[in-house]
Amino acid sequence: MTEPPEAAPDPGDAQPVAWVQDGVRLLDQRRLPWDERWLTVKTVSGVALAIREMVVRGAPAIGIAALYGVVLAVREASIRHGRAWRERVAGDLELLRAARPTAVNLAWAVDTLEAMFPGLDDRPASALLERARALHRADVEANRLMGRLGAAQLGREARVLTHCNAGALATGGYGTALGVLRAAHAEGRLRAVYATETRPWLQGARLTAWELGRSGIPFELLADSAAAWLMRRRGLDWVVVGADRVAANGDVANKIGTYALALAARAHGARLMVVAPVSTLDPAIASGEDIRIEDRPAEELLTLGGQPTAAPGTAAWNPVFDVTPAALVDVLVTERGVLERPDAAGIARLLAAPGPAAGADALC
Amino acid sequence: MTEPPEAAPDPGDAQPVAWVQDGVRLLDQRRLPWDERWLTVKTVSGVALAIREMVVRGAPAIGIAALYGVVLAVREASIRHGRAWRERVAGDLELLRAARPTAVNLAWAVDTLEAMFPGLDDRPASALLERARALHRADVEANRLMGRLGAAQLGREARVLTHCNAGALATGGYGTALGVLRAAHAEGRLRAVYATETRPWLQGARLTAWELGRSGIPFELLADSAAAWLMRRRGLDWVVVGADRVAANGDVANKIGTYALALAARAHGARLMVVAPVSTLDPAIASGEDIRIEDRPAEELLTLGGQPTAAPGTAAWNPVFDVTPAALVDVLVTERGVLERPDAAGIARLLAAPGPAAGADALC
Repeated sequence: MTEPPEAAPDPGDAQPVAWVQDGVRLLDQRRLPWDERWLTVKTVSGVALAIREMVVRGAPAIGIAALYGVVLAVREASIRHGRAWRERVAGDLELLRAARPTAVNLAWAVDTLEAMFPGLDDRPASALLERARALHRADVEANRLMGRLGAAQLGREARVLTHCNAGALATGGYGTALGVLRAAHAEGRLRAVYATETRPWLQGARLTAWELGRSGIPFELLADSAAAWLMRRRGLDWVVVGADRVAANGDVANKIGTYALALAARAHGARLMVVAPVSTLDPAIASGEDIRIEDRPAEELLTLGGQPTAAPGTAAWNPVFDVTPAALVDVLVTERGVLERPDAAGIARLLAAPGPAAGADALC
Repeated sequence: MTEPPEAAPDPGDAQPVAWVQDGVRLLDQRRLPWDERWLTVKTVSGVALAIREMVVRGAPAIGIAALYGVVLAVREASIRHGRAWRERVAGDLELLRAARPTAVNLAWAVDTLEAMFPGLDDRPASALLERARALHRADVEANRLMGRLGAAQLGREARVLTHCNAGALATGGYGTALGVLRAAHAEGRLRAVYATETRPWLQGARLTAWELGRSGIPFELLADSAAAWLMRRRGLDWVVVGADRVAANGDVANKIGTYALALAARAHGARLMVVAPVSTLDPAIASGEDIRIEDRPAEELLTLGGQPTAAPGTAAWNPVFDVTPAALVDVLVTERGVLERPDAAGIARLLAAPGPAAGADALC
């Protein structure tokens, strides 16, 4: 018997966050797809800045960067303050938690490592790093599992549209929504793939297009506003997206424009699949009404690459997420299983269910 | 008795096309809002080029530019060829008609002046110019009338969103959808005005924002994909747009994204108002199914100001119009009156109705 051949590495499955000897290595997503530049960040304040400035973005990837940020904070505090590190690190953790408001994964990451603090000895950073790396690996495994689960839902000859970037770049690797597309492509399930450009930050045009192109998955890019017309004129079977936070009742916060796509999908008989790890479910938030939506600076809408895109003096409203009510979500795919027509009872069942495998304590 | 004071000129009510002593003066809309540059075009081939290159855009404005283009063609032919001008001008008229083949107003303008040729004497350009200027004035008058009719529909404290640019810049002056906003603003009817940026050409961010800003109408710009969330989060009463063509059954072709807005409006109880002169109604087109939708080059989506916006090698689908079914249109405002819930019978009534005033032979 021979071993099955190892799959060739997929150049579109990029790891946006990696621990290196002396810090966190981040692929600078502001410069993609034109410039593949990695930054090595060696301090917790640098990690917080990188999250705020969107060097790293995507809820799961932000969570992983934050894990390593906690490691950096504790390493520095333990070197400078010895056994008093716990007291000295609190401010740094707050800085990290405050870097972006909407994604639940950021606070989750900080809380998860902080919960280990009481049991740590005088070399706390090593133990935290070990845990951070395990959680990072578990994230990629969860994504691969969700990819298979989601792909199985698509059926055959599926025409699929994705929004924003819920790919390798948004996670520890492989991706959530793009993980489903990767798996479906490998299984020959896809008839057509569409990606929205995703204004204002162009995550679709820049990042999803970069990943899909490098992975050899044929697709077409379209303006966000053309998606409803795509459904009417060409037909579409699925909209597949990630999530930044899922409320206890199944309402989904995700990139601005998801809600408009959900309305259009429902009007055309296309189905909406949300692909999100269990860590994205937030039982503390009863419904989408309570999810804090980040308004980012008007400049992100009014300029592109430093050049103005709008008339001088223009005021702008720039909410970067929206909330899609659970009633418009057809399928929620998690690493613990697939939930059709998510509601409070289904979300509660998922939260109570065991993880996909021993030790797969998935971050996101 | 004293005359009512003349209204101060509105700097946002820019005339994109004007006849000057020796040619047509065009505001170069490719450079707006950063550079207000007028080009004076003195030949018919120059007018055709300006239309093709989108120096002037917006179907009614294109039609007016074409009227003056015919004048230039006939003036040159009559100077060079005397009484043989009619034979020598035919090629120029074809050049003009072919500049933007999908804009109905372009062919209409050329046809309208050409129909006068048999009755013209040996100074043909003067008579044609007189007619062109009358049609230009009639366009502005029609827009002002539609503005009043549309504003009356809005009620009080209206929260209104407009898409693309159906303003002074797209017409002979004043605008269609923006004409309604101008009139409503003057009457104190507006509580909030929103403009979508309108990818990919950014007509909203560049042109509508420029007009509204100069006219002193407060507004906020938002990403196209944020409009549905605006309706849910903040509430909206009206979506007000222009039209490129209205089929005999009331289906409306307009800028890509209009259809998505119509779906979202219906889902939130906001109403959709289409503001379009009777010349936009096309009884030869039975329904939206038969309207030819222009796909423009992928580069318009993939670059901005010459800079790439998407990953290299990306394929794109770039339809620049879509069709909104009549069932989603709440009000159609024309210079002959307002049609609620437009359908085939109502469109036929409008087409058979007399014009708004004697001599108001509106171009568009």
